[in-house]
Amino acid sequence: MRVVVPFDERRPKTRLSPVLEESERAAFARAMLGDVLAAVGAAAGRADTPTVDTVTLLSTASLPPPTTLVETDDDDGEVTATVPTEVVVDERPLTPAVNDVLAAPEEAGAWTPVAVVMADLALATPAAVAGLLRDGAEVSGRRPVTLVPGRGGGTNALLARHPEFRVDYHGLSFRDHRQRVRAADAALRRVDSYRLSTDVDEPADLPEVLLHGGARSRAWLRRAGFRLRVQEGRVEAVRE
Amino acid sequence: MRVVVPFDERRPKTRLSPVLEESERAAFARAMLGDVLAAVGAAAGRADTPTVDTVTLLSTASLPPPTTLVETDDDDGEVTATVPTEVVVDERPLTPAVNDVLAAPEEAGAWTPVAVVMADLALATPAAVAGLLRDGAEVSGRRPVTLVPGRGGGTNALLARHPEFRVDYHGLSFRDHRQRVRAADAALRRVDSYRLSTDVDEPADLPEVLLHGGARSRAWLRRAGFRLRVQEGRVEAVRE
Repeated sequence: MRVVVPFDERRPKTRLSPVLEESERAAFARAMLGDVLAAVGAAAGRADTPTVDTVTLLSTASLPPPTTLVETDDDDGEVTATVPTEVVVDERPLTPAVNDVLAAPEEAGAWTPVAVVMADLALATPAAVAGLLRDGAEVSGRRPVTLVPGRGGGTNALLARHPEFRVDYHGLSFRDHRQRVRAADAALRRVDSYRLSTDVDEPADLPEVLLHGGARSRAWLRRAGFRLRVQEGRVEAVRE
Repeated sequence: MRVVVPFDERRPKTRLSPVLEESERAAFARAMLGDVLAAVGAAAGRADTPTVDTVTLLSTASLPPPTTLVETDDDDGEVTATVPTEVVVDERPLTPAVNDVLAAPEEAGAWTPVAVVMADLALATPAAVAGLLRDGAEVSGRRPVTLVPGRGGGTNALLARHPEFRVDYHGLSFRDHRQRVRAADAALRRVDSYRLSTDVDEPADLPEVLLHGGARSRAWLRRAGFRLRVQEGRVEAVRE
């Protein structure tokens, strides 16, 4: 199995611009990426996870080695050593870059399943990612594709165990991906995970990070001055 | 095990007032309640679920029998027959009403575990509810309390297997409930479910119902004219 984490450094988290400057958005996006890579690395290292051959950080620009990104001064880190992690730079948009991975045969010439996990799933834990990687029993003899919806109609993660499935990322991608699974005569599976379905795009998502997020993302927000405040029954992340 | 679904008819879903009139909010709230009761009933009837003695609809006002609420003209309904469902009217606020259930011994005099599932979890499925009801292995010999966070800091569902746990519902209740579990020397468990963590409070939640919601809630929104629309990369539920 291969796991791919796509990451776009060029226009990071533009919908957070009401509360974060551009350089802050880039730093926060890297903190979230660090949490996702740590969760993927730990999930891949679990005994009850299928063998992960490669974790690929698919980036639009060159990045420091992932071991730097997941470095941390608390007890959560140092987990990526369990699987090879490579950085592949691909400047194209998300959809063709991911589809090339889905189409490419492995070195040995045989197609292997591919998981795609978005880089802004700041609530991801090893257990949540492992739940995705373990998923995928055949249904009535058909190879499955497992989809994890994102809040707002997107597709936050998937596991393609069928070689003909291709992605088309956009606002309402989940609905289209569902149709594509059926069109490929694959079996549609879903993983029900709040942690994987919560992507961080806009200010209203920041309370989730402060309450349930990974160590790097949460620490970054707190260092930047964000705190929880209850206003008229609603929780907001405000900057002090 | 007892399962309680609290429901407040008095000020239903006030934060939906930008898009729904008061009578519409009441009708939509009942549609969501129907989906929740159907999911709870089906979960309770599964062979791999612990025995559910009673499903209690804890309402601030008298309601038609739950079998009416879950009545439907599609293939999803007719699931509540598997467990007794009673309606208990309690006009008090949510917190004392639920705490009385948590404190009350069963008829036989022995305390039994209590699950509390909010009435606005329109994405709840039998599998998601069953995941909660099945949870609760002891941790290091301590009885557990399982919490399911709601988006925005709330507590959407819980399963108290420890007799001393009490609730305090408010905006940031999840954090307080976490502390109360520890204070009771109970073991803290969480269930990671997008379906149970998505409560429906405001217009931004409606796309989730249209995309992933139960049959009654989704049908109600569609009959009221709501459709999905993508605007500048964001998905909205707009009324046609």
